[in-house]
Amino acid sequence: MFITVKTDQKTQLIDITSTIQEVVSVFCAENNIEDGLCMIYIPHTTAAVTINESADPSVKTDILMVLNKIIPWEDGYHHLEGNSPAHVKAVLVGSSELVAIENKKLVLGTWQGIFFCEFDGPRSRKVNVKIM
Amino acid sequence: MFITVKTDQKTQLIDITSTIQEVVSVFCAENNIEDGLCMIYIPHTTAAVTINESADPSVKTDILMVLNKIIPWEDGYHHLEGNSPAHVKAVLVGSSELVAIENKKLVLGTWQGIFFCEFDGPRSRKVNVKIM
Amino acid sequence: MFITVKTDQKTQLIDITSTIQEVVSVFCAENNIEDGLCMIYIPHTTAAVTINESADPSVKTDILMVLNKIIPWEDGYHHLEGNSPAHVKAVLVGSSELVAIENKKLVLGTWQGIFFCEFDGPRSRKVNVKIM
Repeated sequence: MFITVKTDQKTQLIDITSTIQEVVSVFCAENNIEDGLCMIYIPHTTAAVTINESADPSVKTDILMVLNKIIPWEDGYHHLEGNSPAHVKAVLVGSSELVAIENKKLVLGTWQGIFFCEFDGPRSRKVNVKIM
Repeated sequence: MFITVKTDQKTQLIDITSTIQEVVSVFCAENNIEDGLCMIYIPHTTAAVTINESADPSVKTDILMVLNKIIPWEDGYHHLEGNSPAHVKAVLVGSSELVAIENKKLVLGTWQGIFFCEFDGPRSRKVNVKIM
Repeated sequence: MFITVKTDQKTQLIDITSTIQEVVSVFCAENNIEDGLCMIYIPHTTAAVTINESADPSVKTDILMVLNKIIPWEDGYHHLEGNSPAHVKAVLVGSSELVAIENKKLVLGTWQGIFFCEFDGPRSRKVNVKIM
Protein backbone atom coordinates (compact mmCIF):
# COMPACT_ATOMS: atom_id res chain seq x y z
CA MET A 1 0.00 0.00 0.00
CA PHE A 2 1.10 3.54 -0.71
CA ILE A 3 0.46 6.58 1.41
CA THR A 4 1.00 10.13 0.15
CA VAL A 5 2.98 12.78 2.03
CA LYS A 6 2.88 16.43 0.99
CA THR A 7 5.90 18.44 2.09
CA ASP A 8 6.02 22.26 2.14
CA GLN A 9 9.65 23.00 2.93
CA LYS A 10 13.06 22.36 1.37
CA THR A 11 14.13 20.03 4.20
CA GLN A 12 11.52 18.74 6.62
CA LEU A 13 10.77 15.86 8.97
CA ILE A 14 7.11 14.80 9.14
CA ASP A 15 5.77 12.40 11.78
CA ILE A 16 3.86 9.67 9.87
CA THR A 17 3.44 7.26 12.78
CA SER A 18 -0.34 7.54 13.09
CA THR A 19 -0.86 7.17 9.32
CA ILE A 20 1.31 4.04 9.24
CA GLN A 21 -0.57 2.67 12.28
CA GLU A 22 -3.88 3.19 10.44
CA VAL A 23 -2.59 1.20 7.46
CA VAL A 24 -1.42 -1.54 9.83
CA SER A 25 -4.78 -1.60 11.68
CA VAL A 26 -6.78 -1.93 8.44
CA PHE A 27 -4.45 -4.61 7.04
CA CYS A 28 -4.53 -6.64 10.27
CA ALA A 29 -8.34 -6.43 10.47
CA GLU A 30 -8.84 -7.39 6.80
CA ASN A 31 -6.37 -10.28 6.92
CA ASN A 32 -7.21 -11.38 10.45
CA ILE A 33 -3.62 -11.24 11.70
CA GLU A 34 -2.22 -10.02 15.02
CA ASP A 35 1.54 -10.07 14.61
CA GLY A 36 4.01 -9.40 11.84
CA LEU A 37 6.52 -7.00 10.44
CA CYS A 38 5.99 -3.61 8.80
CA MET A 39 8.41 -2.26 6.21
CA ILE A 40 8.23 1.47 5.53
CA TYR A 41 9.93 2.08 2.17
CA ILE A 42 10.67 5.38 0.39
CA PRO A 43 10.69 5.02 -3.43
CA HIS A 44 12.50 8.37 -3.87
CA THR A 45 16.20 9.27 -4.06
CA THR A 46 16.09 12.66 -2.29
CA ALA A 47 13.93 11.61 0.65
CA ALA A 48 14.34 9.07 3.45
CA VAL A 49 12.71 7.58 6.54
CA THR A 50 13.96 7.47 10.12
CA ILE A 51 12.74 6.57 13.60
CA ASN A 52 13.45 9.06 16.38
CA GLU A 53 11.94 11.21 19.11
CA SER A 54 8.40 12.37 18.46
CA ALA A 55 7.76 14.20 21.77
CA ASP A 56 9.80 17.42 21.36
CA PRO A 57 9.60 19.02 17.86
CA SER A 58 12.96 20.75 18.44
CA VAL A 59 14.68 17.39 17.94
CA LYS A 60 13.52 17.46 14.29
CA THR A 61 14.94 20.99 13.96
CA ASP A 62 18.30 19.91 15.37
CA ILE A 63 18.51 16.80 13.16
CA LEU A 64 17.96 18.93 10.04
CA MET A 65 20.37 21.63 11.28
CA VAL A 66 23.19 19.09 11.69
CA LEU A 67 22.49 17.40 8.32
CA ASN A 68 22.47 20.78 6.55
CA LYS A 69 25.78 21.70 8.24
CA ILE A 70 27.54 18.40 7.46
CA ILE A 71 26.30 18.39 3.85
CA PRO A 72 26.22 22.03 2.67
CA TRP A 73 24.05 23.13 -0.28
CA GLU A 74 27.01 24.53 -2.23
CA ASP A 75 30.17 22.45 -2.41
CA GLY A 76 31.38 22.00 -5.99
CA TYR A 77 28.94 19.18 -6.79
CA HIS A 78 28.97 17.55 -10.25
CA HIS A 79 25.27 16.57 -10.54
CA LEU A 80 23.74 19.37 -12.64
CA GLU A 81 20.27 19.09 -11.14
CA GLY A 82 21.67 20.90 -8.09
CA ASN A 83 20.22 18.56 -5.45
CA SER A 84 23.24 16.37 -4.69
CA PRO A 85 23.13 17.23 -0.96
CA ALA A 86 19.62 15.75 -0.88
CA HIS A 87 20.88 12.52 -2.45
CA VAL A 88 23.71 12.25 0.10
CA LYS A 89 21.34 12.87 3.02
CA ALA A 90 19.04 10.14 1.70
CA VAL A 91 21.99 7.71 1.54
CA LEU A 92 23.01 8.47 5.13
CA VAL A 93 19.52 8.35 6.67
CA GLY A 94 18.31 5.39 4.60
CA SER A 95 15.40 4.39 2.39
CA SER A 96 13.57 1.98 4.68
CA GLU A 97 12.71 1.12 8.28
CA LEU A 98 11.39 -2.09 9.80
CA VAL A 99 9.03 -2.16 12.77
CA ALA A 100 7.53 -5.22 14.44
CA ILE A 101 3.75 -5.55 14.79
CA GLU A 102 2.25 -7.16 17.92
CA ASN A 103 -1.47 -7.24 18.73
CA LYS A 104 -2.09 -5.16 15.57
CA LYS A 105 0.14 -2.35 16.91
CA LEU A 106 3.53 -1.05 15.75
CA VAL A 107 6.07 -1.96 18.43
CA LEU A 108 7.86 1.35 18.97
CA GLY A 109 9.82 2.59 21.97
CA THR A 110 8.15 5.06 24.35
CA TRP A 111 9.62 8.14 22.66
CA GLN A 112 9.83 6.82 19.10
CA GLY A 113 7.95 8.04 16.07
CA ILE A 114 8.39 7.29 12.36
CA PHE A 115 9.46 10.32 10.32
CA PHE A 116 9.30 10.96 6.59
CA CYS A 117 12.44 12.96 5.73
CA GLU A 118 12.12 15.47 2.87
CA PHE A 119 15.51 16.66 1.61
CA ASP A 120 14.50 18.37 -1.67
CA GLY A 121 10.99 19.75 -1.22
CA PRO A 122 8.41 20.94 -1.39
CA ARG A 123 6.96 17.93 -3.22
CA SER A 124 4.21 15.35 -3.15
CA ARG A 125 5.80 12.03 -2.08
CA LYS A 126 4.85 8.39 -1.72
CA VAL A 127 5.64 5.95 1.07
CA ASN A 128 5.32 2.22 0.46
CA VAL A 129 4.00 0.31 3.49
CA LYS A 130 4.45 -3.45 3.23
CA ILE A 131 3.20 -5.79 5.94
CA MET A 132 4.38 -9.38 6.30
CA MET B 1 12.35 -11.05 23.14
CA PHE B 2 14.21 -8.26 24.90
CA ILE B 3 17.79 -8.31 26.07
CA THR B 4 19.21 -5.72 28.43
CA VAL B 5 22.44 -3.81 27.83
CA LYS B 6 24.07 -1.75 30.57
CA THR B 7 26.34 1.01 29.30
CA ASP B 8 28.91 2.82 31.47
CA GLN B 9 30.13 5.62 29.21
CA LYS B 10 28.64 8.66 27.43
CA THR B 11 29.28 7.15 23.98
CA GLN B 12 30.12 3.48 23.68
CA LEU B 13 29.96 0.54 21.27
CA ILE B 14 29.25 -2.84 22.90
CA ASP B 15 29.59 -6.13 21.02
CA ILE B 16 26.29 -8.02 21.57
CA THR B 17 26.85 -10.73 18.95
CA SER B 18 27.14 -13.65 21.37
CA THR B 19 24.06 -12.55 23.34
CA ILE B 20 22.00 -12.28 20.14
CA GLN B 21 23.31 -15.70 19.02
CA GLU B 22 22.16 -17.20 22.36
CA VAL B 23 18.65 -15.80 21.83
CA VAL B 24 18.65 -17.21 18.28
CA SER B 25 19.87 -20.63 19.47
CA VAL B 26 17.18 -20.90 22.15
CA PHE B 27 14.43 -19.73 19.76
CA CYS B 28 15.49 -22.14 17.02
CA ALA B 29 15.64 -25.06 19.47
CA GLU B 30 12.25 -24.27 21.04
CA ASN B 31 10.52 -23.76 17.68
CA ASN B 32 12.40 -26.48 15.84
CA ILE B 33 13.55 -24.19 13.02
CA GLU B 34 16.90 -24.03 11.21
CA ASP B 35 16.69 -20.95 8.99
CA GLY B 36 15.16 -17.51 9.19
CA LEU B 37 15.78 -13.87 9.70
CA CYS B 38 16.77 -11.99 12.85
CA MET B 39 15.81 -8.35 13.40
CA ILE B 40 17.76 -6.47 16.07
CA TYR B 41 15.72 -3.41 17.00
CA ILE B 42 16.60 -0.54 19.36
CA PRO B 43 13.49 1.00 21.03
CA HIS B 44 15.44 4.13 22.07
CA THR B 45 16.03 7.48 20.36
CA THR B 46 19.59 8.16 21.55
CA ALA B 47 21.03 4.71 20.86
CA ALA B 48 21.45 2.62 17.71
CA VAL B 49 22.72 -0.68 16.34
CA THR B 50 25.38 -1.35 13.72
CA ILE B 51 27.33 -4.25 12.23
CA ASN B 52 31.08 -3.78 11.87
CA GLU B 53 34.50 -5.18 12.75
CA SER B 54 34.66 -7.09 16.03
CA ALA B 55 38.33 -8.20 15.88
CA ASP B 56 40.22 -4.98 16.70
CA PRO B 57 38.65 -2.86 19.50
CA SER B 58 40.38 0.27 18.11
CA VAL B 59 37.81 0.27 15.26
CA LYS B 60 35.10 1.03 17.85
CA THR B 61 37.24 3.88 19.21
CA ASP B 62 37.69 5.37 15.73
CA ILE B 63 33.99 5.08 14.85
CA LEU B 64 33.06 7.01 18.01
CA MET B 65 35.86 9.56 17.45
CA VAL B 66 34.58 10.39 13.96
CA LEU B 67 30.92 10.56 15.07
CA ASN B 68 31.82 12.88 17.96
CA LYS B 69 33.82 15.10 15.56
CA ILE B 70 31.11 15.29 12.87
CA ILE B 71 28.36 15.93 15.44
CA PRO B 72 29.87 18.07 18.23
CA TRP B 73 28.31 18.19 21.70
CA GLU B 74 27.88 21.98 21.64
CA ASP B 75 26.49 23.55 18.47
CA GLY B 76 23.55 25.87 19.21
CA TYR B 77 21.01 23.05 19.48
CA HIS B 78 17.34 23.84 20.21
CA HIS B 79 16.34 20.68 22.12
CA LEU B 80 16.56 21.70 25.78
CA GLU B 81 17.38 18.23 27.10
CA GLY B 82 20.91 18.81 25.75
CA ASN B 83 21.27 15.46 23.99
CA SER B 84 20.51 16.44 20.40
CA PRO B 85 23.86 15.10 19.12
CA ALA B 86 22.84 11.68 20.45
CA HIS B 87 19.55 11.86 18.50
CA VAL B 88 21.39 12.80 15.29
CA LYS B 89 23.90 9.95 15.72
CA ALA B 90 21.01 7.52 16.22
CA VAL B 91 19.40 8.75 12.97
CA LEU B 92 22.63 8.28 11.01
CA VAL B 93 23.58 4.86 12.40
CA GLY B 94 20.02 3.49 12.44
CA SER B 95 17.59 1.77 14.77
CA SER B 96 17.65 -1.76 13.38
CA GLU B 97 19.74 -4.41 11.65
CA LEU B 98 18.71 -7.57 9.84
CA VAL B 99 20.81 -10.74 9.82
CA ALA B 100 19.97 -14.03 8.13
CA ILE B 101 19.88 -17.27 10.18
CA GLU B 102 21.11 -20.53 8.64
CA ASN B 103 21.54 -23.80 10.54
CA LYS B 104 20.52 -21.92 13.72
CA LYS B 105 23.46 -19.51 13.33
CA LEU B 106 23.57 -15.78 12.51
CA VAL B 107 25.07 -15.43 9.02
CA LEU B 108 27.73 -12.77 9.59
CA GLY B 109 30.86 -12.02 7.58
CA THR B 110 34.22 -13.23 8.93
CA TRP B 111 35.06 -9.94 10.68
CA GLN B 112 31.53 -8.80 11.51
CA GLY B 113 29.99 -8.36 14.93
CA ILE B 114 26.73 -6.72 16.04
CA PHE B 115 27.24 -3.61 18.17
CA PHE B 116 24.87 -1.78 20.48
CA CYS B 117 25.67 1.94 20.10
CA GLU B 118 25.19 4.10 23.19
CA PHE B 119 25.14 7.82 22.37
CA ASP B 120 23.79 9.27 25.64
CA GLY B 121 24.93 7.01 28.46
CA PRO B 122 25.48 5.64 30.88
CA ARG B 123 22.06 3.95 30.94
CA SER B 124 20.31 0.61 31.12
CA ARG B 125 18.97 -0.15 27.62
CA LYS B 126 16.79 -2.72 25.91
CA VAL B 127 17.30 -4.45 22.56
CA ASN B 128 14.34 -6.15 20.86
CA VAL B 129 15.31 -9.38 19.08
CA LYS B 130 12.64 -10.64 16.69
CA ILE B 131 13.08 -13.88 14.75
CA MET B 132 11.04 -14.77 11.67
CA MET C 1 22.78 -16.82 -2.69
CA PHE C 2 26.02 -14.91 -3.08
CA ILE C 3 27.00 -12.69 -5.96
CA THR C 4 30.55 -11.45 -6.49
CA VAL C 5 31.48 -7.81 -7.10
CA LYS C 6 34.95 -6.82 -8.27
CA THR C 7 35.91 -3.24 -7.45
CA ASP C 8 38.81 -1.40 -9.08
CA GLN C 9 39.03 1.83 -7.09
CA LYS C 10 39.65 2.87 -3.48
CA THR C 11 36.10 4.17 -3.06
CA GLN C 12 33.46 3.28 -5.62
CA LEU C 13 29.71 2.87 -6.08
CA ILE C 14 28.66 0.07 -8.43
CA ASP C 15 25.08 -0.36 -9.67
CA ILE C 16 24.13 -4.00 -8.96
CA THR C 17 20.38 -3.66 -9.64
CA SER C 18 20.29 -5.85 -12.76
CA THR C 19 22.37 -8.59 -11.11
CA ILE C 20 20.08 -8.62 -8.07
CA GLN C 21 17.02 -8.71 -10.36
CA GLU C 22 18.49 -11.75 -12.17
CA VAL C 23 18.90 -13.57 -8.84
CA VAL C 24 15.31 -12.65 -7.92
CA SER C 25 13.96 -13.81 -11.33
CA VAL C 26 15.71 -17.20 -11.08
CA PHE C 27 14.60 -17.70 -7.47
CA CYS C 28 10.98 -16.78 -8.21
CA ALA C 29 10.89 -19.09 -11.25
CA GLU C 30 12.47 -22.04 -9.39
CA ASN C 31 10.24 -21.66 -6.33
CA ASN C 32 7.12 -20.63 -8.22
CA ILE C 33 6.58 -17.43 -6.21
CA GLU C 34 5.46 -13.97 -7.34
CA ASP C 35 5.80 -11.76 -4.30
CA GLY C 36 8.18 -11.46 -1.39
CA LEU C 37 11.00 -9.53 0.13
CA CYS C 38 14.63 -9.30 -0.95
CA MET C 39 17.42 -8.62 1.54
CA ILE C 40 20.73 -7.43 0.09
CA TYR C 41 23.39 -8.01 2.75
CA ILE C 42 27.08 -7.06 2.72
CA PRO C 43 29.24 -9.49 4.78
CA HIS C 44 32.16 -7.03 4.88
CA THR C 45 33.12 -4.28 7.34
CA THR C 46 34.60 -1.75 4.89
CA ALA C 47 31.84 -1.91 2.27
CA ALA C 48 28.12 -1.15 2.32
CA VAL C 49 24.94 -1.08 0.24
CA THR C 50 22.63 1.83 -0.55
CA ILE C 51 19.68 2.66 -2.77
CA ASN C 52 19.85 5.93 -4.73
CA GLU C 53 19.71 7.53 -8.16
CA SER C 54 20.90 5.33 -11.01
CA ALA C 55 20.17 7.73 -13.93
CA ASP C 56 22.99 10.29 -13.63
CA PRO C 57 26.44 8.83 -12.75
CA SER C 58 27.53 12.19 -11.28
CA VAL C 59 25.31 11.48 -8.27
CA LYS C 60 27.66 8.60 -7.36
CA THR C 61 30.64 10.95 -7.71
CA ASP C 62 29.04 13.51 -5.39
CA ILE C 63 28.06 10.92 -2.77
CA LEU C 64 31.66 9.68 -2.60
CA MET C 65 33.04 13.24 -2.60
CA VAL C 66 30.93 14.19 0.43
CA LEU C 67 31.74 10.96 2.33
CA ASN C 68 35.48 11.44 1.70
CA LYS C 69 35.22 15.05 2.92
CA ILE C 70 33.24 14.24 6.09
CA ILE C 71 35.48 11.28 6.96
CA PRO C 72 39.05 12.18 5.88
CA TRP C 73 41.67 9.50 5.22
CA GLU C 74 44.09 10.94 7.79
CA ASP C 75 42.73 11.97 11.17
CA GLY C 76 44.70 10.44 14.02
CA TYR C 77 42.95 7.07 13.85
CA HIS C 78 43.87 4.29 16.29
CA HIS C 79 43.18 1.22 14.12
CA LEU C 80 46.62 0.23 12.78
CA GLU C 81 45.33 -1.30 9.54
CA GLY C 82 44.84 2.27 8.28
CA ASN C 83 41.31 1.81 6.95
CA SER C 84 39.24 3.26 9.80
CA PRO C 85 37.54 5.80 7.49
CA ALA C 86 36.21 2.85 5.45
CA HIS C 87 34.76 1.26 8.61
CA VAL C 88 33.03 4.52 9.59
CA LYS C 89 31.56 4.97 6.09
CA ALA C 90 30.23 1.40 6.24
CA VAL C 91 28.56 2.15 9.60
CA LEU C 92 26.89 5.32 8.26
CA VAL C 93 25.70 3.86 4.93
CA GLY C 94 24.70 0.48 6.36
CA SER C 95 25.23 -3.21 5.72
CA SER C 96 21.84 -4.16 4.28
CA GLU C 97 18.86 -3.00 2.24
CA LEU C 98 15.37 -4.44 1.92
CA VAL C 99 13.34 -4.27 -1.28
CA ALA C 100 9.87 -5.68 -1.87
CA ILE C 101 9.26 -8.14 -4.73
CA GLU C 102 5.99 -8.00 -6.69
CA ASN C 103 5.26 -10.03 -9.85
CA LYS C 104 8.85 -11.35 -9.66
CA LYS C 105 10.25 -7.80 -9.90
CA LEU C 106 12.10 -5.65 -7.38
CA VAL C 107 9.78 -2.79 -6.38
CA LEU C 108 12.06 0.22 -6.77
CA GLY C 109 11.17 3.88 -7.35
CA THR C 110 11.52 5.31 -10.87
CA TRP C 111 15.02 6.69 -10.30
CA GLN C 112 16.26 4.13 -7.79
CA GLY C 113 19.06 1.63 -8.24
CA ILE C 114 20.86 -0.62 -5.74
CA PHE C 115 24.53 0.27 -5.27
CA PHE C 116 27.38 -1.74 -3.83
CA CYS C 117 29.60 0.73 -1.94
CA GLU C 118 33.33 -0.01 -1.88
CA PHE C 119 35.17 2.01 0.76
CA ASP C 120 38.54 0.19 0.87
CA GLY C 121 39.20 -1.23 -2.59
CA PRO C 122 40.11 -2.50 -4.97
CA ARG C 123 38.91 -5.92 -3.81
CA SER C 124 36.77 -8.88 -4.75
CA ARG C 125 33.61 -8.70 -2.63
CA LYS C 126 30.55 -10.81 -1.92
CA VAL C 127 26.91 -9.74 -1.62
CA ASN C 128 24.42 -12.02 0.09
CA VAL C 129 20.97 -11.98 -1.55
CA LYS C 130 18.26 -13.56 0.58
CA ILE C 131 14.68 -13.84 -0.67
CA MET C 132 11.72 -14.46 1.62
